[in-house]
Amino acid sequence: MKEDKIDKLIKKLSKLPGFGKRSAVRSVLYLIDNRAKFDELINALATVYKEIKICSVCGNFDTQNPCSICSDVKRDNSVICVLNSVSDLWALEKSESFKGKYHVLGGLLSAIDDVTPEDLNIENLIKRIDSNVNEVILALPLTVEGKTTAFYLMDRLKDKGVKITELAHGVPIGGELEYLDEGTIVEALKSRKQI
Amino acid sequence: MKEDKIDKLIKKLSKLPGFGKRSAVRSVLYLIDNRAKFDELINALATVYKEIKICSVCGNFDTQNPCSICSDVKRDNSVICVLNSVSDLWALEKSESFKGKYHVLGGLLSAIDDVTPEDLNIENLIKRIDSNVNEVILALPLTVEGKTTAFYLMDRLKDKGVKITELAHGVPIGGELEYLDEGTIVEALKSRKQI
Repeated sequence: MKEDKIDKLIKKLSKLPGFGKRSAVRSVLYLIDNRAKFDELINALATVYKEIKICSVCGNFDTQNPCSICSDVKRDNSVICVLNSVSDLWALEKSESFKGKYHVLGGLLSAIDDVTPEDLNIENLIKRIDSNVNEVILALPLTVEGKTTAFYLMDRLKDKGVKITELAHGVPIGGELEYLDEGTIVEALKSRKQI
Repeated sequence: MKEDKIDKLIKKLSKLPGFGKRSAVRSVLYLIDNRAKFDELINALATVYKEIKICSVCGNFDTQNPCSICSDVKRDNSVICVLNSVSDLWALEKSESFKGKYHVLGGLLSAIDDVTPEDLNIENLIKRIDSNVNEVILALPLTVEGKTTAFYLMDRLKDKGVKITELAHGVPIGGELEYLDEGTIVEALKSRKQI
């Protein structure tokens, strides 16, 4: 009979996003078979668990506070890119195309899920916008919640005298029209450019 | 910039079977957001890491040695079911249809991957077959490796005076013929039964 402690571990693993029961069982067996990897994984998890901090400036996760991006003097303080989540921040950072600062809201306004401005990292954003900041990029999703949040932020920022921008929308590079949703096609047509 | 230690954790997680880079990133963010679950997962992993033992009788994984199945006096000692892996053992155990004992080979004979009888948990199996054992079920896959291993074991067991059986092959319950491989259909036809 499978031991309770192993069962418990499988259950916990299978609750991770993108993980199912089957992968959890296979992972546990893989770890038991590879003791060195098992040990390394536990250490990597424990290190992050112990050292992780939420940046009090921007809301990013890092092992230092303020985070390495907020502390980086080489980055442009005059542009702040506002994001829904830390995973969006990591995705943007991976593209190596943005050298300003970030601000993670930690969610989006939602009437259905009862998410109000107080639940999000918004007051810290308003406080950050001083005379050094020229532009706020609202890199939020084009969903009802994303748009609601963008409108709310635009209202809160309207007296700050900063330029407010959003990311361009259109056909993704390598994207084929036949697989694209209509909303994106409408947006791409509307914003078409002369070549 | 994403911290090195977080990166390292993501890399380690994404090497688990069934796990990709994307799920690893999402899992790390999920764990950071849910500190209690993060702690529980580390503890569950560390417990299994510390307490896991390989049963010296059958090769099962358990927190005790001999494992809880081998130590269970209520189980039938006269039937031994031979399996490729511990995950196969867990799958059979989950079906609650077998009350004998198990023997995990820890792999299959393979000329291509250079797996010889010495690499597998075979000698322990031969030693286990004494006058108390009436039947050995070879629950091995119907692949070249599985069949090679079965033939080898049949040869090794031929003088032991035990009945050697294999699992029935046929159409899985709920399986539709059109999605089944031809080998299974051939097998199911050959072994057809009067109703």
